[in-house]
Amino acid sequence: MDPDRPHIVVIGGGFAGLWATRALASSPVRITLVDRCNHHLFQPLLYQVATAGLSSPDIAAPLRHILRKQQNVEVRLAEVRDIDAAANRVVLEDGGKLEFDYLLLASGATHAYFGHDGWAQHAPGLKTLDDALQLRRHLLLAFERAEAEPDPAKRAAWLNFAIVGGGPTGVELAGTLAEIARHTLTNEFRNINPSDAHVRLIEAGPRVLSSFPEDLSGKARRQLSKLGVEVSTGIPVTHIDGSGYHLGDEFVAARTVVWAAGVAASPLAKTLDVPLDRAGRVPVASDLSVPGHPRIFVAGDLASVQQDGKPIPGVAPAAKQMGRHVADAIRARLQGKRAPDFRYKDYGNLATIGRMAAIVHFERLKLSGIVAWWFWLAAHVFFLIGFRNRLVVLLNWAWAYWSYQRGARIILGHDDEDQPRSTRQA
Amino acid sequence: MDPDRPHIVVIGGGFAGLWATRALASSPVRITLVDRCNHHLFQPLLYQVATAGLSSPDIAAPLRHILRKQQNVEVRLAEVRDIDAAANRVVLEDGGKLEFDYLLLASGATHAYFGHDGWAQHAPGLKTLDDALQLRRHLLLAFERAEAEPDPAKRAAWLNFAIVGGGPTGVELAGTLAEIARHTLTNEFRNINPSDAHVRLIEAGPRVLSSFPEDLSGKARRQLSKLGVEVSTGIPVTHIDGSGYHLGDEFVAARTVVWAAGVAASPLAKTLDVPLDRAGRVPVASDLSVPGHPRIFVAGDLASVQQDGKPIPGVAPAAKQMGRHVADAIRARLQGKRAPDFRYKDYGNLATIGRMAAIVHFERLKLSGIVAWWFWLAAHVFFLIGFRNRLVVLLNWAWAYWSYQRGARIILGHDDEDQPRSTRQA
Repeated sequence: MDPDRPHIVVIGGGFAGLWATRALASSPVRITLVDRCNHHLFQPLLYQVATAGLSSPDIAAPLRHILRKQQNVEVRLAEVRDIDAAANRVVLEDGGKLEFDYLLLASGATHAYFGHDGWAQHAPGLKTLDDALQLRRHLLLAFERAEAEPDPAKRAAWLNFAIVGGGPTGVELAGTLAEIARHTLTNEFRNINPSDAHVRLIEAGPRVLSSFPEDLSGKARRQLSKLGVEVSTGIPVTHIDGSGYHLGDEFVAARTVVWAAGVAASPLAKTLDVPLDRAGRVPVASDLSVPGHPRIFVAGDLASVQQDGKPIPGVAPAAKQMGRHVADAIRARLQGKRAPDFRYKDYGNLATIGRMAAIVHFERLKLSGIVAWWFWLAAHVFFLIGFRNRLVVLLNWAWAYWSYQRGARIILGHDDEDQPRSTRQA
Repeated sequence: MDPDRPHIVVIGGGFAGLWATRALASSPVRITLVDRCNHHLFQPLLYQVATAGLSSPDIAAPLRHILRKQQNVEVRLAEVRDIDAAANRVVLEDGGKLEFDYLLLASGATHAYFGHDGWAQHAPGLKTLDDALQLRRHLLLAFERAEAEPDPAKRAAWLNFAIVGGGPTGVELAGTLAEIARHTLTNEFRNINPSDAHVRLIEAGPRVLSSFPEDLSGKARRQLSKLGVEVSTGIPVTHIDGSGYHLGDEFVAARTVVWAAGVAASPLAKTLDVPLDRAGRVPVASDLSVPGHPRIFVAGDLASVQQDGKPIPGVAPAAKQMGRHVADAIRARLQGKRAPDFRYKDYGNLATIGRMAAIVHFERLKLSGIVAWWFWLAAHVFFLIGFRNRLVVLLNWAWAYWSYQRGARIILGHDDEDQPRSTRQA
């Protein structure tokens, strides 16, 4: 590639970074896309991997493969250590250095425990494929431990599942977990009845799915109850440890607590040395560049953008739009023009709840129940990257729907809390 | 379940243990099937997971699910610590104890490094799904490391792949790896040409696939060469470390060495306190019981059985036949009859080599090349457990064949040798 072309470094191969990179396909630039994972992840379906409905490769595709035909891109599997904004340089953990003409920082978000970092080990979150596989292992093992436990109180604690956070991920996890307990595992155990499992969704605020209008939020709550989920709103979790959690003053013995509440920006934002918002995100200018650093852009979950007095939500469509906008802005700058202002176009909002249950809000259109679920299904299969993935995912879903089964109920790897693994049984 | 029924304990949910359990479905017994994994694994396709062609759930099904309708079975996810043959008791790592009337020990085999246990960390083997995922990660990372390596000699070492052992697993891995390097990764890298990768299959004996007739073995070797694999026979590997291996006196720099050579019986055999053969297997009586312990049977890879002066091979059909035989033997004993003698029926032998390349030997029928490959494909898809798996696997294969792509090229988890993982890029 022509080394005289301007060099664009993109950090993060999520929706923002990948869409920006693709939008620059025919521009006279060199792009280096850096990610510490080798794959783009279709994060909206991550909960399906955590609940054994899909396997990891169904919702992930290698970045190199997606971009193989785009000759102006080099993909680099590496961890970023530091951004030297003054020197226009990115420093990698492996010692490599990338000098840039323009930088897009799109490294996304991670879990936040609101100052209770000790909760992390007892209440894992869900952001990466590794998180999802760890959660899948934990959920499946909980039923196994219950089956082997003679003490009724201890057994009940293994069958007590709490999900903290009533946003889309929490709702999806709770609804799916209830389905697994009530339908998927039927007849498989001899000492427990899996449908004795208790699934509780905990939201400190007044209602679940608070980004939706109040009536849809209420419908979502009723659909969750119908699926067997107990919904607790208005009381915060005050403590989590290995034996259970406190909801306000009440202690509940539970061996599984899943964290779907807090999101914090990637710590890379700190290396920019600019003021951040409370969640650690970078407040950006109207063209998505960093104030004081016109060659650096931020997009996706890491960007803090207000529009018409409201924050732009951390959802995939917003990240894609921001990524494409940054590509436009860089092209404008290269031509000596002023970069345009970013304007988020809200196409609507949809959330799935469980088997045949979802809510949809598109401008004046409000749907819930089966119709909303079909809508959600079609949208998600359509947006999955890669022909093969779409077909396999559809097939898996068709099979899951018909049989109530989940194809990926395989316990892999090893928790430290579990029995030691030896090479005894092959 | 009626606690007065005779209690059969089966250790291991592989082909031998699972087939024995299913064959006892309508017998008036209680069965406890103990396995440290929650799934039955279709081991003949494990190399496809290691080479990113299939994902784990495609070749594994939860034991509980397979056996959910068989009311006389309880599945127990546990590690076995000890077998007390005198007291007819199995002791579990979790402290549980299982008293048995009859025991089937079918815990299979693991890797053996012929006394060089230090090689294990540099040359991982392939027996479990965890092994396969670790190998997949290593293979995919090798190309990534090569891409990032400026030093030509170090880069070549990352592109040097050695597979030790010319049996079916070694041949399958070598052929598939050559295809990945030559076809799958085309156009994806900017600094390396993946087809510069060098794949070498090393067999200390005189020929690969030595369980086949000499002419088929020669055809397999020619098919491997055509796929781009260098086949070395007649020289043993004398040393392996993190930088490479010695073949006889020659040192070869290679960052990837895969162990497909030695198999040793599960260490559980030792707790029986009977004489074992050189590989640690249990020499059994003609009815597959352990001499001196008529209530204990051994089947599958752990059993050492001679027939017509030849050892019965460690393949899935033999394990299934042994498992079914043990079920017959236990039924006969319960009726006060003498257990029948086991007789292995050899239906033939088949091995796949790579894209459209395989060999088949069924009595007088000898096939190689495309016809043999279709034969192999049909047999393996047919024998995969579970409707959903068959369809998904077929679909994945059709797609892989049409596109040269492999759907599961996702790097998960973390090797200690790699860069430290932090929460920087989300």
